[in-house]
Amino acid sequence: METAEIVGVGSELIRGETLDTNTAEVALSLRPYALGVWRTLRVADDVERLAQTARELWPKARLLVFLGGLGPTPDDVTTEAVARGLGLELEEDPAMLAEIARRFEQMGRRMTERNRKQARKPAGARWLPNERGTAPGWWLREGGRDLVVLPGPPAEWKPIWEGLLPRLGLPESGAVRRVVKTFGLGESQIMEQIADLWDRGVTSGIYAHPDGVYLSAEGEEKSVGSWIEEVSRRLQDYVWGYDDDTLPGLLHAWLWERGETVATMESLTGGLLAGLLTGVPGSSRSFLGGMVSYSMGAKASFGVPAGILSAHGAVSAETAAAMAAAARQALGTTYGIATTGVAGPDSLEGHPAGTVYVGVSGPQGSQARLYRFPPLGREAVRQRSAYAALAYFWRLRP
Amino acid sequence: METAEIVGVGSELIRGETLDTNTAEVALSLRPYALGVWRTLRVADDVERLAQTARELWPKARLLVFLGGLGPTPDDVTTEAVARGLGLELEEDPAMLAEIARRFEQMGRRMTERNRKQARKPAGARWLPNERGTAPGWWLREGGRDLVVLPGPPAEWKPIWEGLLPRLGLPESGAVRRVVKTFGLGESQIMEQIADLWDRGVTSGIYAHPDGVYLSAEGEEKSVGSWIEEVSRRLQDYVWGYDDDTLPGLLHAWLWERGETVATMESLTGGLLAGLLTGVPGSSRSFLGGMVSYSMGAKASFGVPAGILSAHGAVSAETAAAMAAAARQALGTTYGIATTGVAGPDSLEGHPAGTVYVGVSGPQGSQARLYRFPPLGREAVRQRSAYAALAYFWRLRP
Repeated sequence: METAEIVGVGSELIRGETLDTNTAEVALSLRPYALGVWRTLRVADDVERLAQTARELWPKARLLVFLGGLGPTPDDVTTEAVARGLGLELEEDPAMLAEIARRFEQMGRRMTERNRKQARKPAGARWLPNERGTAPGWWLREGGRDLVVLPGPPAEWKPIWEGLLPRLGLPESGAVRRVVKTFGLGESQIMEQIADLWDRGVTSGIYAHPDGVYLSAEGEEKSVGSWIEEVSRRLQDYVWGYDDDTLPGLLHAWLWERGETVATMESLTGGLLAGLLTGVPGSSRSFLGGMVSYSMGAKASFGVPAGILSAHGAVSAETAAAMAAAARQALGTTYGIATTGVAGPDSLEGHPAGTVYVGVSGPQGSQARLYRFPPLGREAVRQRSAYAALAYFWRLRP
Repeated sequence: METAEIVGVGSELIRGETLDTNTAEVALSLRPYALGVWRTLRVADDVERLAQTARELWPKARLLVFLGGLGPTPDDVTTEAVARGLGLELEEDPAMLAEIARRFEQMGRRMTERNRKQARKPAGARWLPNERGTAPGWWLREGGRDLVVLPGPPAEWKPIWEGLLPRLGLPESGAVRRVVKTFGLGESQIMEQIADLWDRGVTSGIYAHPDGVYLSAEGEEKSVGSWIEEVSRRLQDYVWGYDDDTLPGLLHAWLWERGETVATMESLTGGLLAGLLTGVPGSSRSFLGGMVSYSMGAKASFGVPAGILSAHGAVSAETAAAMAAAARQALGTTYGIATTGVAGPDSLEGHPAGTVYVGVSGPQGSQARLYRFPPLGREAVRQRSAYAALAYFWRLRP
């Protein structure tokens, strides 16, 4: 199989000062094609190293993509470096220079000498105009192979790439890929139940995420379909969705269909649960509001009965259920969802970090359940707890 | 300068099903040493490709680190592949086998044949025991150079790596690195003000983050100190912190010192602001609670005066200030912080996506200001708005 090589450019990517999601997103966009993407690279803003990278990768790749380092600042050297690595001549394009000058004028700013380099590309390369920034990309086709150089900001390179990809004439794979999404079982618990299915007629994958463990199958459509079906049958109630499903997305779509609404009350997740629910465009139709009851006083003033708090403490099933009921009542919604527990690092009321109760309240009453998360650290416990509350609601829904 | 090569192993890393943060964290940990880290790689769980990678990188590296692919599942092939690439013999260690069996017993589970491979390492390599999982790492020292193979989960590899790093005898650099953190100016606006300082006596860097633009300087201590001082002087009020500072961390420390408290009311950020504030361990001492007033009804029932809502609409300076005041009042805190605006994708009440008001209320009164964010997408606008509210509070603080 021919290969694609994807390089994120920027010294800030190496040490994570900026998180590189670009290379993964380009790799993802190549899934429908019969191209092997067996590695991705992040390379510093260093002319020699970048030139060396281009020189090593280009001879064997069907497609070579660089992202980043096209801006006006002194550390933006990608075009110069790639040209040097491949022995290409750079030429200044007067039309592009005028275009860049025009944009600066539009923004009411003066073009500096530094911006001039953005008008240079290798002879024979085509410009890839950038509608959302001043740095255009460029594209060189040579012997049926493609070299693509794109700006780094996602808002800038994505529209360029979406327009370009279908024009590259890449071989299509015909393979499909499907994903089953679960919550509540660990990776090895799942492996124990499906070990005999691993790589049986499909390429299998298993990945842990904050919203649970995903299983994937890639291959011929029919085999993938029956693999997914068998895995779903074995894991049953732990399965909450497929493919592009998200818990907040499923939950809102379900509420929209029924004309129902939800509110939240959160302790240890401190707003993350509401943050997930409001991440869905249009969520204001079904999510009316939420409360972060981070202190005992706040719990009481948001309507959690003082008697329950004093009898059972903040970290209890009774309090979680009462919080969900109070959320529902305070905002007059169909359902309430609540979280309470210990994010850590320290234990609380004698409960170790990772002890979490999630509560759900609705027309049929209120209930709660306990999760015990391993010591993953404060932020991971908070994230998993927010998803646990959504997964619990999803499983209980009438 | 000698180099370090860092490889994240896992097909799921290539397409971002799991985001690779491991390679960046290892690179970051190497900052005090005089080792060049000019690239990092993510490589698929493929014996041939991994072996090829090890073969290509090892001859020139002072340090070569692999992370991931040591587990029991069939796609965990790192040890086998690295050994094959470097022509090393694998041997099974009976003591490690017994240790792994013992752990399974402790967890009440049976060790399977699949787990047996976790007891194999190259002859001459030393085990790196894993306190938090079943997969140990291993370390091979050869001709003053180090090959380190670690498990993938951060909670597992980090303690191993922290213990190992000082024992590798890496050359120290003596260089320091400092960071200035700003909010409210774009990268190119900042470059216009400091262009003449770029790479002057230090190595400069500039990075955009959700909590603003960071500027970094690396080099000899005294030069770095005066560079940071001069940049701070020029950017003045836009600077909110240095180095490891975070806005929520600074804000809580300031409140703790004064014995004061804060509450939030959020519209477009939908819980993210409270989520940031509660991300700080110990935040319950100063953050009492918050409200997500995602509907007009919720705003009113949380105490925002109906007259202000009807006169100015949900997206206005008046409403942002009234929300901050209502948050303060509802929970009896010293300060209130609020957000309202349009996350997108659609516009609202005639305001385009990216129109955001943040409000702050305290003993001296309430005020608000407008931010207009570019069309970065819903989630990015929400994130920046949450940080804008914190930055606004930080700048206004008495």
